[in-house]
Amino acid sequence: MATFGDIGVAAGINILSALVFLIAFAILRLQPFNDRVYFPKWYLKGLRESPTHSGAFVKKIVNLDWRSYIKFLNWVPDAMKMPEPELIDHAGLDSAVYLRIYLLGCAMAFQQFLEWFNCFLSLFIKLNVSLLIQSMIQDMMDIFPLMCCMIVLSSTKFRFWTHTVMAYAFTFWACYILRKEYAIVSAMRLHFIASERRRPDQFTVLVKNVPPDPDETVSESVEHFFLVNHPDHYLTHQVVCNANKLAELVKEKKKKQNWLDYYQLKYSRNQLKRPMTKTGFLGLCGEKVDAIDYQTAEIERLSKEIAEESERVKNDPKSIMPAAFVSFKTRWAAAVCAQTQQSRNPTLWLTEWAPEPRDVFWDNLAIPYVSLTIRRLIASVAFFFLTFFFMIPITFVQSLANIEDIEKYAPFLKPIIEVPVIKSFIQGFLPGIALKIFLIVLPTILMLMSKFEGFLSISSLERRAATRYYIFNFVNVFLVSVIAGTALQQLKSFLHQSPSAIPKTIGVAIPMKATFFITYIMVDGWAGVAGEILRLKPLIIFHLKNFFVVKTEKDREEAMDPGSIGFNTGEPQIQLYFLLGLVYAVVTPVLLPFILVFFALAYVVFRHQIINVYNQEYESAAAFWPDVHGRIISAMVFSQLILMGLMSTKGAANTTPFLIALPILTIYFHKFCKGRYEPAFIRYPLQEAMMKDTLERAREPNLNLKGYLHNAYIHPVFKNEEDDEDDISPEKFEQESVLVPTKRQSRRNTPVPSKISGGSSPSLPDVVEESLLP
Amino acid sequence: MATFGDIGVAAGINILSALVFLIAFAILRLQPFNDRVYFPKWYLKGLRESPTHSGAFVKKIVNLDWRSYIKFLNWVPDAMKMPEPELIDHAGLDSAVYLRIYLLGCAMAFQQFLEWFNCFLSLFIKLNVSLLIQSMIQDMMDIFPLMCCMIVLSSTKFRFWTHTVMAYAFTFWACYILRKEYAIVSAMRLHFIASERRRPDQFTVLVKNVPPDPDETVSESVEHFFLVNHPDHYLTHQVVCNANKLAELVKEKKKKQNWLDYYQLKYSRNQLKRPMTKTGFLGLCGEKVDAIDYQTAEIERLSKEIAEESERVKNDPKSIMPAAFVSFKTRWAAAVCAQTQQSRNPTLWLTEWAPEPRDVFWDNLAIPYVSLTIRRLIASVAFFFLTFFFMIPITFVQSLANIEDIEKYAPFLKPIIEVPVIKSFIQGFLPGIALKIFLIVLPTILMLMSKFEGFLSISSLERRAATRYYIFNFVNVFLVSVIAGTALQQLKSFLHQSPSAIPKTIGVAIPMKATFFITYIMVDGWAGVAGEILRLKPLIIFHLKNFFVVKTEKDREEAMDPGSIGFNTGEPQIQLYFLLGLVYAVVTPVLLPFILVFFALAYVVFRHQIINVYNQEYESAAAFWPDVHGRIISAMVFSQLILMGLMSTKGAANTTPFLIALPILTIYFHKFCKGRYEPAFIRYPLQEAMMKDTLERAREPNLNLKGYLHNAYIHPVFKNEEDDEDDISPEKFEQESVLVPTKRQSRRNTPVPSKISGGSSPSLPDVVEESLLP
Repeated sequence: MATFGDIGVAAGINILSALVFLIAFAILRLQPFNDRVYFPKWYLKGLRESPTHSGAFVKKIVNLDWRSYIKFLNWVPDAMKMPEPELIDHAGLDSAVYLRIYLLGCAMAFQQFLEWFNCFLSLFIKLNVSLLIQSMIQDMMDIFPLMCCMIVLSSTKFRFWTHTVMAYAFTFWACYILRKEYAIVSAMRLHFIASERRRPDQFTVLVKNVPPDPDETVSESVEHFFLVNHPDHYLTHQVVCNANKLAELVKEKKKKQNWLDYYQLKYSRNQLKRPMTKTGFLGLCGEKVDAIDYQTAEIERLSKEIAEESERVKNDPKSIMPAAFVSFKTRWAAAVCAQTQQSRNPTLWLTEWAPEPRDVFWDNLAIPYVSLTIRRLIASVAFFFLTFFFMIPITFVQSLANIEDIEKYAPFLKPIIEVPVIKSFIQGFLPGIALKIFLIVLPTILMLMSKFEGFLSISSLERRAATRYYIFNFVNVFLVSVIAGTALQQLKSFLHQSPSAIPKTIGVAIPMKATFFITYIMVDGWAGVAGEILRLKPLIIFHLKNFFVVKTEKDREEAMDPGSIGFNTGEPQIQLYFLLGLVYAVVTPVLLPFILVFFALAYVVFRHQIINVYNQEYESAAAFWPDVHGRIISAMVFSQLILMGLMSTKGAANTTPFLIALPILTIYFHKFCKGRYEPAFIRYPLQEAMMKDTLERAREPNLNLKGYLHNAYIHPVFKNEEDDEDDISPEKFEQESVLVPTKRQSRRNTPVPSKISGGSSPSLPDVVEESLLP
Repeated sequence: MATFGDIGVAAGINILSALVFLIAFAILRLQPFNDRVYFPKWYLKGLRESPTHSGAFVKKIVNLDWRSYIKFLNWVPDAMKMPEPELIDHAGLDSAVYLRIYLLGCAMAFQQFLEWFNCFLSLFIKLNVSLLIQSMIQDMMDIFPLMCCMIVLSSTKFRFWTHTVMAYAFTFWACYILRKEYAIVSAMRLHFIASERRRPDQFTVLVKNVPPDPDETVSESVEHFFLVNHPDHYLTHQVVCNANKLAELVKEKKKKQNWLDYYQLKYSRNQLKRPMTKTGFLGLCGEKVDAIDYQTAEIERLSKEIAEESERVKNDPKSIMPAAFVSFKTRWAAAVCAQTQQSRNPTLWLTEWAPEPRDVFWDNLAIPYVSLTIRRLIASVAFFFLTFFFMIPITFVQSLANIEDIEKYAPFLKPIIEVPVIKSFIQGFLPGIALKIFLIVLPTILMLMSKFEGFLSISSLERRAATRYYIFNFVNVFLVSVIAGTALQQLKSFLHQSPSAIPKTIGVAIPMKATFFITYIMVDGWAGVAGEILRLKPLIIFHLKNFFVVKTEKDREEAMDPGSIGFNTGEPQIQLYFLLGLVYAVVTPVLLPFILVFFALAYVVFRHQIINVYNQEYESAAAFWPDVHGRIISAMVFSQLILMGLMSTKGAANTTPFLIALPILTIYFHKFCKGRYEPAFIRYPLQEAMMKDTLERAREPNLNLKGYLHNAYIHPVFKNEEDDEDDISPEKFEQESVLVPTKRQSRRNTPVPSKISGGSSPSLPDVVEESLLP
């Protein structure tokens, strides 16, 4: 068990490394040649120009103004200065609300801290002063971990009551601020949505699972369905094409074009020598040819292929997916269509809010309903195995990668390996590398799983991946650290233990692990966050790219990797700190200041990063808040169960019944919040929609909405194409939608009625449709 | 343990009593004086007239036609003859689908039976014939319970595989027919709804939690809100009044009126003596007065009170509840409004489908949102205590009610009690009576709980009570019988056992209890169902009432107590048999024929009762099916876990992993069904609504819908009143709804804006509203 000294050393090292990171950042950010690394957001917004364009050469690279170094910590007030509304405007609501999670953490940890302080103070004044001082002094003298959990380990009855009262106080306080925060965030979301300017997704609904019709194309089928069922509101629609291959080709063409630019630049500088290239893999092998000619030919070939593929996608019915973006004349009608069931068969004509165009995940738009259930099942089973059995292949790889085996199968390496330094390095390095690689690729694996499950927007993919990452962390970081045993062993022991024994096992282990988690917070939290602001990896990669790869100005733009918040990895990390805070708040409050420091530091750092670095990939208007809230609640319930387990082992079984109300109250609090605030995140109130519609009608009575929506939900590949052609003439779109004569043959004349006609009875819809048609 | 002989005796007794019941019924139903007991449904429908009105006096009471006695079992084909569509027409979809549950039970039990038969047959032919015969003969010679569970108790590995294969076969078969049944029922429901004639609830939405407005009444507030947010569709509305006191008064007046009729009849028969009555409790004590004068005075007093109360309810704003039934011009608009969120604040302006008028539970219409969450919490906690701790007060009552105590506290009873016959009767009777009374009032307690929870329709009250009753039965009948220990003891042992030990404990006990459950099925199932058709209690009560209470013809109508299906008690009982069937199907197939007989018998009996006896209280269009389906699924998962537990104890742990996929597949099957079919039970597709609207518009272009809907959702008390007055003139209702000038004061002139204005920002809605108003 670590002593006070050990903790001190660890704290020293970590504080030092955090400080080093912060100072390094403060200096590096002032150097002009790092400008694109530390302020990419402003470049992307077009608000900042490359400082390398003007001034002396040295000044372009190194900042020689000594005054700026004095104020090197200025970035902190800079980051804090921007007010929230401006931040929302600058980086989107998602980012602003994401920062509020850190603030929430600060508030919770700080209040818990204060309550303990009050508690001690009041004890000090009112009760048993001498006894408390005595025991405190005695505890102080003790080794550190015992001090951490002194209150639990000594079994004065009075102290158990303190813990019980504290548990209630924390729960009520936590619920109070969680409710307040949920209310604020949902109000922010509604206000954001209400004050937004016109956006295509406000008018548009994504329709999936359009049933196949033998007589009509998907486009006609969609048009007829919505003309019949939303006659006063339907405006236009856009079918979804499978343009994945086309997108591939366009990407390839762009790359070749870039190479061509590079070679032409090279040739124009040195007219004597035509640049040459090799046709093989990465230009490293194969026949040597004239580079400019080769690239020109390649581009021509690709252009032709793209034109062919584009034609094929547009005309081949097989590449039309049974899904469409349907737009309505008013927000009201879109809100109605998104929230209602259209067809008798609830697996056909599924409607949901269209994500914003840049948030759409195009590949998943055509997964049929039955397949979705199966995919979800497979993903859950796979995730279960990933969580509990991932150690098996890693252990297997580790057992393969030992020095003896390497020497056996690759004897020529023997002389090198046998060098003592290299040998010890390999021995220390190899066993860990498989695990390390796995942990690095884990978020990617989880994102792939979410993609496989068939989510339709990038934001929902990230939300699902975040949930899974949190569970993985909970099992494989938190529980494994606490109980010391792999997840699989835990699973086994939990299956064979009684439900009341599990909280006891964990509860008893919790106070013992306080020192470990303090170290963890300092390494992963403090130093990790300080490392985040330094952006060492993007810094190095940018300069490497700038040196070796960057051929054109466009390349430099692309070498600048601003990254994004990374909700799928960032949020689960925060949640781990919430979990630690809640679990330790009652038992070992010494952990609280460490968590408080983490939240405060992370808030400042991420505020800076969001303002200056991260690029916003999509705007989901804080759709992730219910997840965040739910995970905090589950951590609360977990901590309460653990506390009950701990109490019952410490000879305080008589207080346990007083704690049983806590999880029940917390779960009902969650239910209440779910009912009260969650609808703001999944539904769109008609009142709101009607209000915006009415205002817009008053302001812009002659708006050409059809023109506005025409190209909004076209596949990004076509979008670029059509933007170039710019063939959108307003006269082309009549304000009134017209009835398209149906190509559907009258069923009454066909001898055998077609069986696939939307799941509804084949005769009735025809009657209705025909009664509406001229 | 019961032997083959014991079972035989039990079977004999129960079959005999069932036969006695059936024969008694067959004879009694032919007697004309029982006609109102056995055919009340036809009286209620007005399709049958009292046979006592015509013919000789003896013939009125006893059936002397000997031929009808020969065909005394004719009721069975009679009950089976009515085809399903006619049954739906006659008794409603709820009843028809309710019968399908029995059919489903038959199908499942029969198929399980067949599969075992096949299995044995194929074994017999293909495998190890001599060995099997040997063991079968040996088993046959064995005592009965061992025969029941022979396959499990003998541990040939081959036989474990048989069980595993059987478990899979049963699961797939069960899923197959469950899916088919779900599809059929949801199609029946949709067809029923689609083919229904015009009903008020198709156009109407129930709006709850109308926010208070200082400037407007609830009625005005509702009208304005819907005129603004559904401008093209809003038709009319009906606010909900708290008329509970008024209903009470009306009921009292009716009773007095009935007494008056009785006394007047008595006086007209015997003009010599004015009938007298006492004014006190039940006419048994108090001053003696002239009965006719007294009742006339009472009626006059009540009439005045009713008029006053009615006036008060209509005008006092305090008796107007913040809820309203809002009707729309089309079904489409009602479907839209019911499925969407109206206001920013999701706890205000809550909309849901209006139940049909007779299904509304008026008392619960004004419970605010926050209170609902708390009520639900209290009800769950109360139900938990009811389930696990109900034995405590009963044991307490039992301990009080022993003979010594009675003798001690009421010594004057001693001589009577000391008579040996009476003493032994009391000793045998007393301990059981508290439990018996509790079990009889349990469904009423559960219904009260559901009412307390705030459900708005009688059908949903019954559904919730059914769920609770099933859980109670599962814990206190099934588990208590299997494990032998009160629910509380079980709860304790389950908390301290490992999760994998619980299925083992239950699994091992299951085969041992086969004989007990066979007896249970015969007593509760066979004899119970046969008793149901005899209707002994209503029969006796009807004749008693007829003899003592019935004063007028109207009373006779009321003495006839048809009862109803009683979903809240009947369905949980069926579910218990599903549970038994599923649990024993794999382990002890001997139980299957008993269950099969129960389902078949119950089907015939309840079909007869539904056609001839039960009165339909409401029509929910089979809204209960998702619950039925869910409970069967949960029984399946339970049986699979039990099987796993049993297998692992019987030295067949190696087959357990093969079984683990079963519950996972079953749960995902449930998820699939939920997504595929459940929406048909909770949402109303727009396509369907639009179709009906279009057809209706074509058929009846000049329909006065406002007149039709005017009185549909008025409180039943007022309804009778207004029906009498019959003041509905069609001219009174204009086809076009007009804009009502708002009484709301402009906020711009008031110095402090009112804070309670619907949760949305106070300025915007006014702008919108005023822009719409002249």
